[in-house]
Amino acid sequence: MRFATLPNGHPDGRLHLVCRRNRAAVPTQAVATLLEALEHWDDVAPLLERQYRLLNAGCSVDSVAFEADRAMAPLPRAWQWLDASAFDSHGQLMEQAFKLQARHALGRPLMYQGVSDRFQGPTEPSPFPSEEDNIDFEGEFAVITGPVEMGRDAQSCATATRLVVQVNDWSLRYLGPIEMKTGFGMLQCKPRCSMAPVALTPDELGDAWRDSRVDLALDVSVNGAHFGHPNGHAMSVGFHELIAHAAYSRDLPAGTVIGSGTISNADFRRVGSACIAERRAMEIADTGLASTPFLSFGDEVRMECRLADDSPLFGAILQQVVPVANR
Amino acid sequence: MRFATLPNGHPDGRLHLVCRRNRAAVPTQAVATLLEALEHWDDVAPLLERQYRLLNAGCSVDSVAFEADRAMAPLPRAWQWLDASAFDSHGQLMEQAFKLQARHALGRPLMYQGVSDRFQGPTEPSPFPSEEDNIDFEGEFAVITGPVEMGRDAQSCATATRLVVQVNDWSLRYLGPIEMKTGFGMLQCKPRCSMAPVALTPDELGDAWRDSRVDLALDVSVNGAHFGHPNGHAMSVGFHELIAHAAYSRDLPAGTVIGSGTISNADFRRVGSACIAERRAMEIADTGLASTPFLSFGDEVRMECRLADDSPLFGAILQQVVPVANR
Repeated sequence: MRFATLPNGHPDGRLHLVCRRNRAAVPTQAVATLLEALEHWDDVAPLLERQYRLLNAGCSVDSVAFEADRAMAPLPRAWQWLDASAFDSHGQLMEQAFKLQARHALGRPLMYQGVSDRFQGPTEPSPFPSEEDNIDFEGEFAVITGPVEMGRDAQSCATATRLVVQVNDWSLRYLGPIEMKTGFGMLQCKPRCSMAPVALTPDELGDAWRDSRVDLALDVSVNGAHFGHPNGHAMSVGFHELIAHAAYSRDLPAGTVIGSGTISNADFRRVGSACIAERRAMEIADTGLASTPFLSFGDEVRMECRLADDSPLFGAILQQVVPVANR
Repeated sequence: MRFATLPNGHPDGRLHLVCRRNRAAVPTQAVATLLEALEHWDDVAPLLERQYRLLNAGCSVDSVAFEADRAMAPLPRAWQWLDASAFDSHGQLMEQAFKLQARHALGRPLMYQGVSDRFQGPTEPSPFPSEEDNIDFEGEFAVITGPVEMGRDAQSCATATRLVVQVNDWSLRYLGPIEMKTGFGMLQCKPRCSMAPVALTPDELGDAWRDSRVDLALDVSVNGAHFGHPNGHAMSVGFHELIAHAAYSRDLPAGTVIGSGTISNADFRRVGSACIAERRAMEIADTGLASTPFLSFGDEVRMECRLADDSPLFGAILQQVVPVANR
């Protein structure tokens, strides 16, 4: 199934089913919001599936054209957003360039909790306090879980993934190292994230949902110029292991969003990066100096992941960076 | 005003006003939940104040005895819980004992985001995965804010505090230093917190609400034995500054909870501590060895803060530590 949320004046918006080509949408009959669907999944999923089949068969009398530009984040707010850093090549590059201690060598997933009271919509301008904070993006995949009880093991967490989403985790790179050195981790350096318009059940990915990972490239461009297309399968741990890590000492409520961290591949020289900091780290490794600038107000970031046959999946994120004073 | 939330089968419970002696309670007429009240504060506060005056005058026909033991957390869930570490004497002791780098010397508040999809009620047993994680408590004060727009300065944040609460921030000390070293900060080491039953508007504290701080002692005992009674005024920054720090690069939704961190005073040898780790740090400084054990399953922790004339305020937290398997 494919889900999108359209604005209706309420913070949770109005849930819609989106057809397999992302062209038509229909308001869900069984529930009004995605959070509600996730809280009652076992009861409502069969009803939603029936409605989804009718939509794909062209038999939904009340379907309309899906306007992705109008969409909110498919899950506009959630009780927890837990973001990991599961790509070793990203960690290694950053540690080497910025002389961080070998935090990836500790043998446990890296994860922090970030803003989840609102995820930005896919085309919403993103406000920041200052260019001097070194504004960056992070292209990620994430899963949305059902309820997970404290202490569940990784194997049993494989079935906890309800939906897969595509996320831009905005980052302020000047503040990051300062906050990481305190031991308290990232807070000011992690503003609100954004989500691509369509959330998918894993079966929509076909063979590309493999080992609880997304085996597809995320295409990232800045101001229309290609920036990178790393593949999501290179996670050192799968989403099921990230879910279990998160649930070690807490229950996860339905609708918990768990992020992969910036997608990164070992052959980053060929595939490029899903964030500026990583490219700068590469430049520092090569020449001693970073030449790619961080973002300026007015810059546009685009991210999209499609299937191997080029058919659409999550839809695109296309956001402009703006000063907070202008919003 | 004083608020408590009683169970009604819904995750947000049913909001009640509690009289100034914490003896009588009445369901709020203007709204059903505290989160709803916080989202519409300017509209509903005058109505709630009128009902509160009637309650205190003994003129509420539908008031009942306030059973604090039945109370949920006054705010059973919130979109953000941001916990600081604003007491310098705590940071200095911990750094000295555990050879942490001087994270408090960086001149900016320390803050991380923790679990807020559910705060434990004041007498709810608290489940943990293992005693070997070194289970500890942290007695704190916290404020609950109205909505705060990104970029508001500290001075203007002084008026953003709607309510003051008393919190136990459970901590797993074995995991803390491991997570702090990664730079990603605290996640597994910070399970759900609990709240004392009554949330207060700052005026209920009288002169004890001073400089956006609570100038009162928090009495902490373990298994009935006094453990400490440090005063909340020693924060190196006030709650208004913590709110502004949190809002640097994010909007804070109504109902954001901002914690002080473990209350700690420079004369800790006289007043004791609000967490075990700090007492152990003191023992290590004195003798090279920590002798006070962390908590075992079955142990009980009690925390209460009263006014100088011994009249009740937030009510007491009294929780037992239990294995997650037994809940």
